[in-house]
Amino acid sequence: MIAIAERINGMFKDVKKAIKNRDASIIQDLARKQTAAGAKFLDCNVGTAAADQLSTMQWLVESIQSAVDTPIALDSQKIEVIKAGLEVCKSEVMINSCKADDDQLDLYMPLAVEHNASLVALTITADGVPQDIDTRVMIAANIAAKAMEHGLPMEKLFIDPIILPVNCDQKQPEYLLEVMRQIKLISDPAPHMTVGLSNVSQGTSQRELINRTFLVMAMGAGLDSAIFDVLDTEIMDAAITADMLKDKMIYSDSYLKAARM
Amino acid sequence: MIAIAERINGMFKDVKKAIKNRDASIIQDLARKQTAAGAKFLDCNVGTAAADQLSTMQWLVESIQSAVDTPIALDSQKIEVIKAGLEVCKSEVMINSCKADDDQLDLYMPLAVEHNASLVALTITADGVPQDIDTRVMIAANIAAKAMEHGLPMEKLFIDPIILPVNCDQKQPEYLLEVMRQIKLISDPAPHMTVGLSNVSQGTSQRELINRTFLVMAMGAGLDSAIFDVLDTEIMDAAITADMLKDKMIYSDSYLKAARM
Repeated sequence: MIAIAERINGMFKDVKKAIKNRDASIIQDLARKQTAAGAKFLDCNVGTAAADQLSTMQWLVESIQSAVDTPIALDSQKIEVIKAGLEVCKSEVMINSCKADDDQLDLYMPLAVEHNASLVALTITADGVPQDIDTRVMIAANIAAKAMEHGLPMEKLFIDPIILPVNCDQKQPEYLLEVMRQIKLISDPAPHMTVGLSNVSQGTSQRELINRTFLVMAMGAGLDSAIFDVLDTEIMDAAITADMLKDKMIYSDSYLKAARM
Repeated sequence: MIAIAERINGMFKDVKKAIKNRDASIIQDLARKQTAAGAKFLDCNVGTAAADQLSTMQWLVESIQSAVDTPIALDSQKIEVIKAGLEVCKSEVMINSCKADDDQLDLYMPLAVEHNASLVALTITADGVPQDIDTRVMIAANIAAKAMEHGLPMEKLFIDPIILPVNCDQKQPEYLLEVMRQIKLISDPAPHMTVGLSNVSQGTSQRELINRTFLVMAMGAGLDSAIFDVLDTEIMDAAITADMLKDKMIYSDSYLKAARM
């Protein structure tokens, strides 16, 4: 499980305040804690807090890099903000995210290749989020084909098939599992798959339980990455256990601890 | 999720003692608690405690039936013990279990049909437990074919593809998921699938976590029944949530409570 840690996001009050006050210690503390919890990437999103998103992204990246070596996922819908982040990133990096229209892929994929970055591509186009299985898989196949065209290796491609809130359309989680099973067959090696996990439980009364249950079901169907709260011990334990059950790590009596080292 | 509650089993000390002292109150208490926790069947296994397994099975069944109406799963490897249980069962019943050799199926399936009982058939033959995917699926297909031959409807057939301890062979859980996906395609409607869940975590340091994680992964792959400890609130919450995510029950803010009514 390539866990992308979600907490360094201006949406959260503590981060918003840290950005406003340029208080790096709060960011660094989150970077250290999430790394210790097993994060493989630290998501980094300026949110709507900052007036200047470009310089804020750079400040966030530099704050994180002064504390840990963990790869950063630059999270923005604006390519200028991503580019600002890329300028100051010293190590492995992920671009999170782009949409699946050809003109978008033709913009982001060369950028990812240039920076040797991973890229999250959403199965969303100008037509919106497809509700059915076939359209999602078709879009995913097009993303994978485009990646080959641009020379972006599959191990750098993270397709996000978009999980919608279960309380809006209860058929979506099961659809997503089938989509994931099919995306695994698109190419060999298959692209990675990731989801913005917390979306599945939006507006529900049991957010943590629904998040971790769907994560484990999805891992059974081939999901190998997700953005979520790695500081939630229960969901990390579930993700590590699912990895162990998928033979991705060796069982030992201390496998939960070993996975976090 | 058709939860088969595992606690009324002579293997457990309290049940062993209750059997020895013919103390029905302990059995009835377990029957009531497991029913309230959401059990769809109460497994009933005399274990090795009793000298006379036939009369003990009948005493257990009668003790349970005097407390609750929940269907009983008669659990024994001996057909005489199963038959003794069937004699006194008043309502819906499950036979747990038989092996998959033709002579065994030809013995148990007519018995199940005669008593309108559900039947758990293990993908085990005289050759043992198959280690690979294809043999397990082939055996499962033969079980389903035999059921049709004997007039046992698919909704009464529970195929158990046998989960082995993860610390013995870490490839087995992932194999099982693929076996389950394929068994779902054997017939339409598909047979039920069940597992003796606790086997996956035999000898490990994290039994509850491994049990519930594998249960949820397997439910994603089509598992719709399992025998486990329904008094473990965390695993029941996970199973109910997986059912909700599979659109098997309607989401409401109190779905966890609703599923147990």
